[in-house]
Amino acid sequence: MLSSQATARKAIALHKKLKGKILFGNKTHRLKLKELQLIYTPGVAAVSEFIFHHPDQKYILTSKRNNVAIVTDGTRILGLGNIGPYAALPVMEGKSVLYRQFGGITAFPLCLNTTDKEQIIKTILAVEPAFGAINLEDIESPKVMEISEELEKKISIPIFHDDRHGTSVVALAALLNSLKLVKKQISSIKVVVAGAGSAGYGITNLLRFAGCKNIIVVDSVGAIYKGRTKNMNKYKKNIASLTNFKKQKGMLSEVIKNADVFIGVSGVKNMLTSGMIKSMNEEPIVFALTNPEPEVEPLVAKKAGAKIIATGSYRFHNRVNNALVFPYLMRSILDQRIRKISLDMLLATACAIANTITKKELHYNHIIPDVGDKRLQNNITSALKKFYKK
Amino acid sequence: MLSSQATARKAIALHKKLKGKILFGNKTHRLKLKELQLIYTPGVAAVSEFIFHHPDQKYILTSKRNNVAIVTDGTRILGLGNIGPYAALPVMEGKSVLYRQFGGITAFPLCLNTTDKEQIIKTILAVEPAFGAINLEDIESPKVMEISEELEKKISIPIFHDDRHGTSVVALAALLNSLKLVKKQISSIKVVVAGAGSAGYGITNLLRFAGCKNIIVVDSVGAIYKGRTKNMNKYKKNIASLTNFKKQKGMLSEVIKNADVFIGVSGVKNMLTSGMIKSMNEEPIVFALTNPEPEVEPLVAKKAGAKIIATGSYRFHNRVNNALVFPYLMRSILDQRIRKISLDMLLATACAIANTITKKELHYNHIIPDVGDKRLQNNITSALKKFYKK
Repeated sequence: MLSSQATARKAIALHKKLKGKILFGNKTHRLKLKELQLIYTPGVAAVSEFIFHHPDQKYILTSKRNNVAIVTDGTRILGLGNIGPYAALPVMEGKSVLYRQFGGITAFPLCLNTTDKEQIIKTILAVEPAFGAINLEDIESPKVMEISEELEKKISIPIFHDDRHGTSVVALAALLNSLKLVKKQISSIKVVVAGAGSAGYGITNLLRFAGCKNIIVVDSVGAIYKGRTKNMNKYKKNIASLTNFKKQKGMLSEVIKNADVFIGVSGVKNMLTSGMIKSMNEEPIVFALTNPEPEVEPLVAKKAGAKIIATGSYRFHNRVNNALVFPYLMRSILDQRIRKISLDMLLATACAIANTITKKELHYNHIIPDVGDKRLQNNITSALKKFYKK
Repeated sequence: MLSSQATARKAIALHKKLKGKILFGNKTHRLKLKELQLIYTPGVAAVSEFIFHHPDQKYILTSKRNNVAIVTDGTRILGLGNIGPYAALPVMEGKSVLYRQFGGITAFPLCLNTTDKEQIIKTILAVEPAFGAINLEDIESPKVMEISEELEKKISIPIFHDDRHGTSVVALAALLNSLKLVKKQISSIKVVVAGAGSAGYGITNLLRFAGCKNIIVVDSVGAIYKGRTKNMNKYKKNIASLTNFKKQKGMLSEVIKNADVFIGVSGVKNMLTSGMIKSMNEEPIVFALTNPEPEVEPLVAKKAGAKIIATGSYRFHNRVNNALVFPYLMRSILDQRIRKISLDMLLATACAIANTITKKELHYNHIIPDVGDKRLQNNITSALKKFYKK
């Protein structure tokens, strides 16, 4: 059980009361018969013909512009693992609620009854006409990376992969503000990332792009380096090419020595010990982002000397949460019809989130805005304006 | 152009103003952070686990129970033909608006970027988890019949095919009331159906089930009869086995002689002439349902002696419109978790729609309720209660 007994009871009761938490609305409330004749037959035929002759009008005259498919195959749901598409529904519907509340977006939970890579790709290609963007969610890695890559070649709408894009942005935003507090430069710090799935891959790529030169990524068999043969895949090879230029080997306890920053997206609770934190550089920054049980308990980390601690949980300060990213970034992606998500776009978003915290607000226990901070949309929209291409 | 210039202009202006006419809502309006923690992480994990262990709870705790996929491949949109999935969007969104307004249903327009039968089937099987029912719409025949048949074997949620099920119900409802006015019995009339696609197939099967013994169906090459070889398919063979027991041959002008009822679902405008109507039995009933240009203009039919005239158009009395059926029938299907749509269910729905018109209201120009008649939901729900199986 990932949530406490009391939370679980309340959550189930609320879902039972709502009988499903998402519902379509019509933009115009109750339509009169005369309006129905424009919305549906016979009037709508003119709209269809117009789009047929002017294909780009589909973005003007239909809801495609505001529709997102949240696609999962149920193989990696939260910390619950492979629980299938039906049990995945409440999570995707929850995401839909956040998209609506913070981004004004219609996000439909498309939980798929197949875990086959090719069939997932074909399904997304088939349903594309109704959507302005795809959000890949909680699909096992590296399959999800292959799906994302393949789709980007074949589809004209953007593919947002929250576990990669969203997590990397929010982690970088938190790091940028942390560095301000400890007065270190991103170009001179050493960062250890635990976990080489979608999140680890995304974080590594974005950190490198942001100017971080010294990164070591560890997975379950130890540090990743160029030439390692055990437990590798295409994406870990990419990581190897971007990190660990001294080809350090060994487990986390080895490579964590003299690191300035630890970022955990490993799925392994309590993997970071007091001793490891003590072996880090002074004023160590510890982001233990695995949910709901972090790589180290915040109190343990604090006792061991961690200067700044963040987790993914609402129970602690500094909640590094994708909900700070996806509703707002997607709003900009849709409004500006961005076709492909790029690293400079993600960096701009991370800076916008970091800079939402004013100098006055910035504090060791407040490095990142709260979920629902009303300044986020404006800041992110402004930051992304320059990427507009029609 | 299917709609008048003025209607077309108004329809396009309205769609432009709305910027897409459908929008997801959250059932709970703006959520507080505390509620978000139940709707999304961490609380939602308990809901997912609960469904994982009790699969049937997906109908209690998620929106699956109220979600319908409106699936089309864009091959047979209204009278516009094969205009593709993008131009199909406004029509499917219009249908979504009607589902919401009259049935309280979330109907998502899933316009598919494939016309391949197998890929359409696979896509629907893949997206099934999020939906409580599938509505097949404006897919070319007989492909759509094969898709429907195949899906019914492989999927546990109901497949509603509006062009077949919806049209047959509303046509039968109109016929039942017409027969009251002309005082004829369904068991003794002769009906000629023009058109042997989804609608013609559906109408024929439902008329037979309702006790009509003398039906002749004509397609583009003439009357369908057992043993005909030209232009046949599996569904026309089924029609041949149910109709035309005297194996009459010939075109519409031949077989219409001494018919009591003409039902046109042919897609061919002005195919029914004055002369043909004059050759029918006394007090002929003419349903010219092809949209937007009927098989005969109502004024022409009236002049030729038709006693009761109905069309699919809002410009005339007696509008035989699927919108009288699908929102209400689907509401019952979802609420009562009906797994498969049967002929006795369709007959019960047709009777409920017909009986919504009181004796006092019943008139040659008012054989069927108007779209949005508030009595329809109650009447249809009551009629379908007996089909409830958990």
